[in-house]
Amino acid sequence: MDDVPQVMRTPKSELETRISRLQKEMMSSNLDAVLILQQADKFYFSGTVQNGAIFVALDGEPVFMVRKSLKRALIESELENIVSFESYSQIPEILKEHGFIDISRLGLEMDVMPVSIFNKLKSVFNGVEICDASKHIKNIRMEKSNYEIQMMKKAGDILAKAMQAVPSLLKEGMSEIDLAAETELILRKSGHQGIIRMRKWNQECFYGLILSGESGAISNYMDAPLGGVGPCPAAPRGASPKKIRKGEPIIIDMVSAYNGYVVDCTRTFYLDKLEERLSRAFELSLDIQESVIDMYKSGVNLKDIYDFAVSMASDAGFGEFFMGYGDSKVKFLGHGVGLELDELPVIAEGYDFILRENMTIAIEPKFLFPKVGAVGVENTWVSAREKPEKITDLEDILI
Amino acid sequence: MDDVPQVMRTPKSELETRISRLQKEMMSSNLDAVLILQQADKFYFSGTVQNGAIFVALDGEPVFMVRKSLKRALIESELENIVSFESYSQIPEILKEHGFIDISRLGLEMDVMPVSIFNKLKSVFNGVEICDASKHIKNIRMEKSNYEIQMMKKAGDILAKAMQAVPSLLKEGMSEIDLAAETELILRKSGHQGIIRMRKWNQECFYGLILSGESGAISNYMDAPLGGVGPCPAAPRGASPKKIRKGEPIIIDMVSAYNGYVVDCTRTFYLDKLEERLSRAFELSLDIQESVIDMYKSGVNLKDIYDFAVSMASDAGFGEFFMGYGDSKVKFLGHGVGLELDELPVIAEGYDFILRENMTIAIEPKFLFPKVGAVGVENTWVSAREKPEKITDLEDILI
Repeated sequence: MDDVPQVMRTPKSELETRISRLQKEMMSSNLDAVLILQQADKFYFSGTVQNGAIFVALDGEPVFMVRKSLKRALIESELENIVSFESYSQIPEILKEHGFIDISRLGLEMDVMPVSIFNKLKSVFNGVEICDASKHIKNIRMEKSNYEIQMMKKAGDILAKAMQAVPSLLKEGMSEIDLAAETELILRKSGHQGIIRMRKWNQECFYGLILSGESGAISNYMDAPLGGVGPCPAAPRGASPKKIRKGEPIIIDMVSAYNGYVVDCTRTFYLDKLEERLSRAFELSLDIQESVIDMYKSGVNLKDIYDFAVSMASDAGFGEFFMGYGDSKVKFLGHGVGLELDELPVIAEGYDFILRENMTIAIEPKFLFPKVGAVGVENTWVSAREKPEKITDLEDILI
Repeated sequence: MDDVPQVMRTPKSELETRISRLQKEMMSSNLDAVLILQQADKFYFSGTVQNGAIFVALDGEPVFMVRKSLKRALIESELENIVSFESYSQIPEILKEHGFIDISRLGLEMDVMPVSIFNKLKSVFNGVEICDASKHIKNIRMEKSNYEIQMMKKAGDILAKAMQAVPSLLKEGMSEIDLAAETELILRKSGHQGIIRMRKWNQECFYGLILSGESGAISNYMDAPLGGVGPCPAAPRGASPKKIRKGEPIIIDMVSAYNGYVVDCTRTFYLDKLEERLSRAFELSLDIQESVIDMYKSGVNLKDIYDFAVSMASDAGFGEFFMGYGDSKVKFLGHGVGLELDELPVIAEGYDFILRENMTIAIEPKFLFPKVGAVGVENTWVSAREKPEKITDLEDILI
């Protein structure tokens, strides 16, 4: 193992807390065991994304069966029982060796696991009732530990460096893609991990979006208000070859990730000046952010935050453009972030959920004006009993 | 729709050919219809990745039901029947309106579709027998059209620009990540689309790998010989903060993508000189490439190519290090590329498959030496009746 370098490990105490929280959730729905395979979930419960499956029973240490690379899993993960395996069919035998014999209800990540793998596991666990464990995993992952918040702050610091460089990089006539390339260079050199994970099928993220003028107003396939044209129809999102002009809004929605943890942040820029309607809408997005942040504390119902933000936008005469217009409109104001960009909870229409402490949500009041562009602000916030903390620690206005 | 710019469309004739090939495959396994949802498949059959589902029956025009953005799907896709939908439950009604009433066997992409979505569709198509359509789709996608090969050549041109810049970027003492950031900047500015799609669950790719010295010999979670340390355990692959030194092999395995189409290419660099064993192994990788390319024509069985390459490596005394060593060893020499990085066919141990024309495979003879590093070469080739064509049009040795 001496040919693999030492790495930053997720502390053992973190893993233990997470596993015991999962075991409590399992108890509440009569699950005997859960088998975890998906990248973000696997990292959450083991500290590594090496190819394998983590078996968690109601009692006892988890068994982490690793296909490739066992060597690296042993170095990266603080779990106790890390063993080699080749194929799913060996799992029952391995579990038997570790004393796990009577499993009647097994939970799997049915929201993300492909049918073909599910079918293989179903035949391996012949006679065992298979249930969906994903809601439990998503529940647990909503509440972040201090360790996780520290990771997210580092992701925020990386992002701040790139955002702060934008005013010096931004030049009239450069393309959105050129500006994206330059800011991505800073992100990468500052420790951005590259890959951004999303949970929902067919959702994809590459660094983020740099959209100027009318690009900011273009609808897209993702569950997000901003889209942009992108480089091509196969990747129809984000920066495009369009040249950046004076007087148009330039909205930069950037995703940073450090050791798995994602933060999301948006800033609005312009060259020269913005037309008055856009300046007013931008000020309104800051006002909405301020009011929403006043409400954002444990005990609030998230749907009330959404409704309040919508009413603020309407009262100011901008309701039509809030969070998109026409078929680009989305009915949320914020989304959970953590190991994935699309976590729970969300701040959305009718999403009836009482906020607890240590939940991390990217809150993004934005306005999209047809053919003109988008303005707005977004920060990632961690909830507390009183005032939330801004994880994306960066001024809201950068000139 | 005038607020969405015009884009490069996949030609209608391409889509028609693809759909009629799918219909033939469907006939062969008694499928009445196939519903296509996954990003790469959807792009293949429609020319867009907007959120939606394409219904293809044995006869008649496909129906493309789009959730978001309908506007953009109408602009990006040359399909005839593009309609709006909100939820899966509306699908039977929409199909009825288009005259599709009696469906008894429906194919879905069971290798990639999450169980939760599968279950929803199963209840929507109550009483319909659901089968796996993925093997048909993968079969069709193996054989590329001229149009597709042109796209791949453009991806190759983008890649060549970045690879050719490496000798001028490479400096002693710079980190792998800094070199990665600089080459990625060139890729991005040259038209690389960003996102690289992979089919297999939990497989991920971010641009590619830049590995110096011992980094080249480190095993990883992917089905690939090279891995490297990566920036962190959550993204444990590719360039790391390690400094690049004189005299060590620097292997750069880069993935480029243009309008969906992916190519894969590897070059070996070094500062000053390489130790003799490594130079010999590198020469051997070129010899293996040459011999393999002689065999690579329609009619050859791909397992024979694999066996031949392995025997060449062994005969030269390098068998132990060919395509990895110990737990990093993989049992393949090449993998299909196209809209995804991990397509069929593969050149692998026991993969009994007769090559046909117009199949695009990345062939990558590589040697990994414990604690020392990796050397090798990789190009993407399109098969023909006689000599294959190199899609990654770039010298094998760059100094």
